[in-house]
Amino acid sequence: MATQGLDYKKLYAKNLPPPAATYEGIYEHHFITGHSDPDLIPVDDFVESAERVLRKHGKKLAVYYSDGNGPLGNLAMREYLSKKLKKYRGINASPDEILITSGSTQCILLINDTLIDQGDTVLVEEFTYSGTMRNAIRAGAKVIGVPMDDEGMKIDALEKILADLKKKGVTPKYLYTIPSCQNPTGTNMPMERRKKMLEVAGKYGVPIFEDECYSDLVYEGEWENSIKSLDKSNQVLHIGSLSKSLAPGMRLGYLVAPKDIMSQLVASKVDVGTNMITPWIVADYLEGHYEEHIEEVRDMLQRKRDVLVAALKEHFGPNVQFYTPRGGMVLWIKFPENVDTTKPLEAAKKLGVIYNPGKDWAVDPAKGKNYIRLCFGMPSDDSIRRGIEKLAKAFHDTVGVP
Amino acid sequence: MATQGLDYKKLYAKNLPPPAATYEGIYEHHFITGHSDPDLIPVDDFVESAERVLRKHGKKLAVYYSDGNGPLGNLAMREYLSKKLKKYRGINASPDEILITSGSTQCILLINDTLIDQGDTVLVEEFTYSGTMRNAIRAGAKVIGVPMDDEGMKIDALEKILADLKKKGVTPKYLYTIPSCQNPTGTNMPMERRKKMLEVAGKYGVPIFEDECYSDLVYEGEWENSIKSLDKSNQVLHIGSLSKSLAPGMRLGYLVAPKDIMSQLVASKVDVGTNMITPWIVADYLEGHYEEHIEEVRDMLQRKRDVLVAALKEHFGPNVQFYTPRGGMVLWIKFPENVDTTKPLEAAKKLGVIYNPGKDWAVDPAKGKNYIRLCFGMPSDDSIRRGIEKLAKAFHDTVGVP
Repeated sequence: MATQGLDYKKLYAKNLPPPAATYEGIYEHHFITGHSDPDLIPVDDFVESAERVLRKHGKKLAVYYSDGNGPLGNLAMREYLSKKLKKYRGINASPDEILITSGSTQCILLINDTLIDQGDTVLVEEFTYSGTMRNAIRAGAKVIGVPMDDEGMKIDALEKILADLKKKGVTPKYLYTIPSCQNPTGTNMPMERRKKMLEVAGKYGVPIFEDECYSDLVYEGEWENSIKSLDKSNQVLHIGSLSKSLAPGMRLGYLVAPKDIMSQLVASKVDVGTNMITPWIVADYLEGHYEEHIEEVRDMLQRKRDVLVAALKEHFGPNVQFYTPRGGMVLWIKFPENVDTTKPLEAAKKLGVIYNPGKDWAVDPAKGKNYIRLCFGMPSDDSIRRGIEKLAKAFHDTVGVP
Repeated sequence: MATQGLDYKKLYAKNLPPPAATYEGIYEHHFITGHSDPDLIPVDDFVESAERVLRKHGKKLAVYYSDGNGPLGNLAMREYLSKKLKKYRGINASPDEILITSGSTQCILLINDTLIDQGDTVLVEEFTYSGTMRNAIRAGAKVIGVPMDDEGMKIDALEKILADLKKKGVTPKYLYTIPSCQNPTGTNMPMERRKKMLEVAGKYGVPIFEDECYSDLVYEGEWENSIKSLDKSNQVLHIGSLSKSLAPGMRLGYLVAPKDIMSQLVASKVDVGTNMITPWIVADYLEGHYEEHIEEVRDMLQRKRDVLVAALKEHFGPNVQFYTPRGGMVLWIKFPENVDTTKPLEAAKKLGVIYNPGKDWAVDPAKGKNYIRLCFGMPSDDSIRRGIEKLAKAFHDTVGVP
């Protein structure tokens, strides 16, 4: 029902996104959103860290940028990340080259604000994070999808697209990639391909926008280093998150960029700082617990992946195809070409199951039409098993598959 | 020094803000920014609240929007604010009409994003918060300043501007006002004038964008109710903050709007939620301590105001004029017309004193040229006294006043 009184619709800006839908809460079998397992939130350790850091730093909350912190955000967190990025991602970044953000989404917004004008072009993997596409389009960009295989973005396809654009005089503003535990395909890009991507993008003067939200979550095979670790020409803008490895409710992300580009990105960060309490707690906790915690998370995800794969084989059989990821928390499932995966959604919800129809994760929605994306980080093993059985029923009843 | 390698300047969007300046840290006599007194941060109580809320809610951090919370943000905080706004600001808003944000700056950004197209007009007080002006201009708006007196915005001047704009076919997208403890002038708008503002704006179909960041901080005379409390036609978008009454490092603000407008504002809030830990702590703490705490803050500010006023009289004498505010944490000081208050800034900084030259707080920078803004929430009584003595020296040495 429309609000009585002043008619705001007359005052709205043009080209607004649709109004937000009513929040539906958490479903019994919740296969959307990159959630964590509630049982792996280290509540006791957080309490201990909170007490320690509030006693140590609490009075500093009296200012926007606690002494020594400045607009780059919490110094303890930046110092911790500087060490962690060096040790585990091969990245040499001083705390002054790291920006703390409200989730990695804010990093995407800052990069778009700094680089994108109406009509610009950006490149992404043909299946990619819906939020990245949505925000780039809102910023005015034309988004081009680069074909993929089981090792991520195909470099020959990338080079062809870049050459074609160059003929038209177009330099894309960035090449966005999720090289590790790609969202939604779950693929990991081998080091050799990362090197080639860096070479090809460099040849065309295109920065690589590397999103490593999921890179802590490799549980089988090689743990590839970041593309940024190969970068000798400041060609990579690197972002990451604590949402997947620790907890999304923390809303903590980070951006790594050379100092002069950072000062331009920070000029777009007009929120007068990211909150201080959470990064203090997180930095204090992770300093002593990262290795142990992330091993637990990986084990949990590997186990749930196996549960999910087994349930899909049992209930969908040969009707679906998927790449079995060796890291991350999402599975990208292909149905026969004629299946429109949006159709079973309402029936599934009635059974307590929610999933992402593939079209929102595809640059060309038609190419994603017969896919679904399942997130398996939060639901319990049992919820996964029962949820997939119900999902199969919803698909069977609405689109006849299985 | 420019970064080696890829030249990002070639890729930058047009019309970027200037790169962020290097962070200068906290000065010995820090008279800028709406900071609080570090001694009034209730560290022990925060520790107690943090333990309680993390034990109670910690596992909910596993999801973006903790169960029941949704994109509007932390439910405990919204429930607390719903009660507080009713009791102290005369506002009837259910938790579903309250959005939790990363500081009230995010409220400003969301309202601008929803209402402002390139070339639109907004009205503000002739002296106002620099961040509001900067963000409205970046969003594409033309900002018009409405003349003020010691009771805030002048309504006859407002009506004349609205009538002139109407003749040109222009409906401003909003009328932004800080009616309580106005920033930077320190004035409080009487209830009668608030009523008239609402009537006049309503006549022209212009929403009032009411910023009540400072409204908890009235320490003398009447504590006026919000303009929103008078609103029967959904004509007021109301924002507030915990930054001034509790602590800016919390980064907690809120926006009150009718539900259908809220759903449009939330569509622009693409940060996937505001962090959860801080609002849990703050709601738990304020529930039992608001009255006691805010009395302490008011007493502290009243005392510091007196210290500052006495120091100004002692060291600047009749060379400056100012309105003595009965609330808030800023003083707006007028120098003789020929003084350019930007000139003494470097000399003052060398003496450990930082202040805001008035031009950034004036819609017409020329009108603010001979003003300075002094924030007195954070520095100690002694730091205020010594700082004003040094400030007088810097002014004397550079512009000959006093």
